[in-house]
Amino acid sequence: MEKTVSPVIIKRLPRYYRVITHLDSIGQTKVSSTAIAQLMDFTASQVRQDFCSFGAYGQQGYGYDVQKLKAELENIMGLNKMHNMIIIGAGNIGRAIAGYKGFGEAFKVCAVFDIAPEGIDLGEVKVMNMSQLADYCAANKVDIAVIATPRTAAAQAAQQVVNAGVKNIWNFAPTELDLPGDVLVENISMSESLYVLSYYMNRQEG
Amino acid sequence: MEKTVSPVIIKRLPRYYRVITHLDSIGQTKVSSTAIAQLMDFTASQVRQDFCSFGAYGQQGYGYDVQKLKAELENIMGLNKMHNMIIIGAGNIGRAIAGYKGFGEAFKVCAVFDIAPEGIDLGEVKVMNMSQLADYCAANKVDIAVIATPRTAAAQAAQQVVNAGVKNIWNFAPTELDLPGDVLVENISMSESLYVLSYYMNRQEG
Repeated sequence: MEKTVSPVIIKRLPRYYRVITHLDSIGQTKVSSTAIAQLMDFTASQVRQDFCSFGAYGQQGYGYDVQKLKAELENIMGLNKMHNMIIIGAGNIGRAIAGYKGFGEAFKVCAVFDIAPEGIDLGEVKVMNMSQLADYCAANKVDIAVIATPRTAAAQAAQQVVNAGVKNIWNFAPTELDLPGDVLVENISMSESLYVLSYYMNRQEG
Repeated sequence: MEKTVSPVIIKRLPRYYRVITHLDSIGQTKVSSTAIAQLMDFTASQVRQDFCSFGAYGQQGYGYDVQKLKAELENIMGLNKMHNMIIIGAGNIGRAIAGYKGFGEAFKVCAVFDIAPEGIDLGEVKVMNMSQLADYCAANKVDIAVIATPRTAAAQAAQQVVNAGVKNIWNFAPTELDLPGDVLVENISMSESLYVLSYYMNRQEG
């Protein structure tokens, strides 16, 4: 039943979702592939092809139903399910993620672990010692572990969460993690977005 | 002389750069499009086509020279120039950016501005009051302003940096900024990477 969606298109799904959510928030009920393409700097045929690849079809002369498209994207990306997250590392990045309001309803930061948690107060989010990680993961459903340690500590931290049974890792440390094949790792690189900006800056000057 | 590179390929440049930098760091001197494709989950022909679009050509039976490719990517993205950055907002995200070590040599955080800078110590990076922003920008070369304020303060903060003469904005606030056409804005959404992880998690379970 399910189609295979290429990794290139998967990377675009969140950006489609961002645009569609924005349109929904301003009360727009339908949208053409041309309008979506303009908002995303794509071509309309690319948009139609992408949507088609995950089974969303517009109507000739009408376009796409915004709410239906939003629901389809939420379903594909699992945004209609709750994901419990823990964060490893209570430094600046760990705190920023714990306090970030933009992830939406589908993600909840349940606890933060650090090797020196004393005196760190993150409000509603509990801060615990790394030594409590295994017990916590045994007693609670943890869907995602966020690695927000310094680069040099990332490999060991990742190994610890995997040993504790966590199968999905969101890695903020600027290093590749070498983990068993059944562990999903998504690396976020803040530099990627900065380099895109830098590209456009230097084209203008060129 | 310069070719027009599509926005879709531009988004991929930093990821190519990440892969090539990694290969260079482990001492690899040449690489095939097939090997790059495997590391990035693309097809080899896609890689060759992308590289061709910005003027990097491999040699039949040899592939690409890693150092030359790295230098070409750095040149295209302006990573061989220094960019001075200021950060607006000394909250968790602002502090995380100020302390981040992964941007490379081409970017330097020079100052952080906040409406309540009292008592905030970011080590080598100076923290100043927003009221000093205009004077600072008049006296110093500021290439990029990073918006790291809460969502509700982002529009006003962006307007203030634009009024102070900054032409390039890197926006971490989860909101669209409405700015003059000659101001470059690159939005970073931390959610995008999380939603990609969530997509793969939910495919596995399905």
